[in-house]
Amino acid sequence: MDYSKFSKQELEEMLKIAQKELSKIGKRGISVDMSRGRPANDQFETVMPMLEDAAAYNYTLGGADARNYGGLGGIRQARELFGELLGLRAENVIVGDGSSLDLMYTAVAFAMQFGLRGETPWKDLNKVKFVCPAPGYDRHFAICEEFGIEMITVPMLEDGPDMDTVESLVEDDPSIKGIWCVPKYSNPTGIVYSDKVVERLATMKTAAKDFRIFWDNSYVIHGLYDNNDKLKNIFDVARKAGTFDRIYTFTSTSKITFAGAGVACMGASEENLVEFLKHLSIREICPNKVNQVMHVAFLKNVDNIKKIMAEHAKLLRPKFELVISRLTAEFAGDDFVKWTNPRGGYFISLDVRRCAKRIIELAKTVGVVFTPAGSTFPYHIDDGDSNIRIAPSVPSLEELSNAIDVLILAIKIARIELVLKKLYE
Amino acid sequence: MDYSKFSKQELEEMLKIAQKELSKIGKRGISVDMSRGRPANDQFETVMPMLEDAAAYNYTLGGADARNYGGLGGIRQARELFGELLGLRAENVIVGDGSSLDLMYTAVAFAMQFGLRGETPWKDLNKVKFVCPAPGYDRHFAICEEFGIEMITVPMLEDGPDMDTVESLVEDDPSIKGIWCVPKYSNPTGIVYSDKVVERLATMKTAAKDFRIFWDNSYVIHGLYDNNDKLKNIFDVARKAGTFDRIYTFTSTSKITFAGAGVACMGASEENLVEFLKHLSIREICPNKVNQVMHVAFLKNVDNIKKIMAEHAKLLRPKFELVISRLTAEFAGDDFVKWTNPRGGYFISLDVRRCAKRIIELAKTVGVVFTPAGSTFPYHIDDGDSNIRIAPSVPSLEELSNAIDVLILAIKIARIELVLKKLYE
Repeated sequence: MDYSKFSKQELEEMLKIAQKELSKIGKRGISVDMSRGRPANDQFETVMPMLEDAAAYNYTLGGADARNYGGLGGIRQARELFGELLGLRAENVIVGDGSSLDLMYTAVAFAMQFGLRGETPWKDLNKVKFVCPAPGYDRHFAICEEFGIEMITVPMLEDGPDMDTVESLVEDDPSIKGIWCVPKYSNPTGIVYSDKVVERLATMKTAAKDFRIFWDNSYVIHGLYDNNDKLKNIFDVARKAGTFDRIYTFTSTSKITFAGAGVACMGASEENLVEFLKHLSIREICPNKVNQVMHVAFLKNVDNIKKIMAEHAKLLRPKFELVISRLTAEFAGDDFVKWTNPRGGYFISLDVRRCAKRIIELAKTVGVVFTPAGSTFPYHIDDGDSNIRIAPSVPSLEELSNAIDVLILAIKIARIELVLKKLYE
Repeated sequence: MDYSKFSKQELEEMLKIAQKELSKIGKRGISVDMSRGRPANDQFETVMPMLEDAAAYNYTLGGADARNYGGLGGIRQARELFGELLGLRAENVIVGDGSSLDLMYTAVAFAMQFGLRGETPWKDLNKVKFVCPAPGYDRHFAICEEFGIEMITVPMLEDGPDMDTVESLVEDDPSIKGIWCVPKYSNPTGIVYSDKVVERLATMKTAAKDFRIFWDNSYVIHGLYDNNDKLKNIFDVARKAGTFDRIYTFTSTSKITFAGAGVACMGASEENLVEFLKHLSIREICPNKVNQVMHVAFLKNVDNIKKIMAEHAKLLRPKFELVISRLTAEFAGDDFVKWTNPRGGYFISLDVRRCAKRIIELAKTVGVVFTPAGSTFPYHIDDGDSNIRIAPSVPSLEELSNAIDVLILAIKIARIELVLKKLYE
């Protein structure tokens, strides 16, 4: 829709109608939270059998009782299972408590405080920088902010970060110590890194010896469709290139079993894990291995996890498709409104130029909450004020339908306001 | 026994006999680990009903699903239960994953990196020191070592740390930022801090505004006898004295339910918790609340926990009593060998002047493992080479009996060696 072809009066009339419609919807008393990538509660029902059998599992593993202290890196069986999921040997995996974010934060905290593999602790350097492909995951950026790590925003493209920019940055600047990546069903754009991008990340020259790729593979098996997309195994490339030490990978079962109450893991070279565990051993004696036994007994293997994820996809797919189909019906061919059509993960990324903040604000007035504008960018700075992250997983289809009504109206209102401002102020 | 009254020849004869006996025991092929305060595996059977009912618990609490993200400070019911246990309101308690050590480490890490309540981050100070009553808990000292915090050893007396020394230290030196305390059934001496010591700790003048008492109440309800000892509520004293902000307390269910797979908590002023959670929110979204629901449903209240602990005490008490009675039979009235007779906790503390290292070494040669000598002191420096921490919980009574045979012989051998060396070298 090209609003600029309308007269001021026409625009004001259209604005009034849209505002009236919005306030009418507001009277439905809706309350829909689409701000975070949370599972819907009905997804958890598919996992309750894990708890039903909880007392019957075998907690004695290779002579050790999983109910007792010990085993800082997690139980062997869990390391094997995550290894299978991530394409790593069990030796390259440690399994912790529920939060992969904790493991990522902790990896940064250890590097800050103690340094990595004999290099200077980051806290003792004048400047530490991370490359942050954006739009990206706000909690990654929050870790950088917390530790005073300078973020360099790099555009996220259809096949991953803009590698020309990434390569030239990390080759020249030894203060760049890391990059955040959600390589599969990226948060929020849903893209999967291409083989070429994976290869370039694994093989690029880095000025910093202690450069780390934070390979947050949160959505490793979280496809919405049967033919799950394939991500090239970065560790295979890195092993050949001699850069295995460069990569830390992470994932968890937060969106497979229970959110925050699952099991999380970190994958890395054995030398990196030895160093990580040395520091971790000061912080804790061992993770919750009872939970690990429960998970391994219930999840069994990757084929079985796929079956569970197919159940989740059955619940999630209609929600994604509802949003996409409504946006398509309303805005297809409209250059002003762009959205992603992800094949997995938890987000739809919407771009509405120079209107994101206003749209989110308008939606909020009638009870529909999106992630705050700017959240998907370092320092919350979205130069184009365009990106809105939609998390359609939690609401019911009915709630979602209401929320999309609101979203569409909010987009219209914000755009008309923008044109009125531009042309007539 | 006064070995100095024997002739060299007599001593050498006695030494030979003891050595022969020790090697005879060694041939039994025993393997007993008394190095750590771990529950015995049979204790966990008393807790299995928690898992039997796991699927039946109500995971929907006040509208929120505990199986989903959210609630960084833990579920209300868990905060109430720990509040009851620690003598605190729920508002002064946050509940995390299984490890209280993690919470203690994290409290130190946040102070190092970010500072406390507006004070300078500890990493930016020339020197940070902690007061370390010793013998004490090796993992507390390890946290200090990890962060380069200088440890000042202060004697642990019958009623707690030597408060005259503590007071004069912390009053004068603003670089002293904390003190480690296990106030009830102290690790390893088993003593309970007297009311007077608790009062003095809560009310003493500290030069540092950001001084913190790390009140590690690990054994808050871990009595071996029916009449559980009473520890004065330090928060009550502190509230009156206006020093509530000074205290961080910690405990966990590692020795109530499952070790490392229980639930841990931190208690502090609301302002301190707000600050702690602000930083924690960058590290994780929430703890394992499924585990918290299971724990609250199973543990119910403090009266019920007491019943569970009475079951544990039934299993543990005979082990403690066996060690004590054997040591008494062998060394009663002997000034050279001293041991504690704890009424709770997980340790017996043994002092054998100038022989600890040698005794532990001798025991190890025949398969009996104690905590390494010096571990109960900062920097592993036990000036008197005297303290041995005995953790009698894990072995069976039969294994324990063998281990005490070994211990008694090792003491004899080490002492005779010492006298021979002193008199005849």
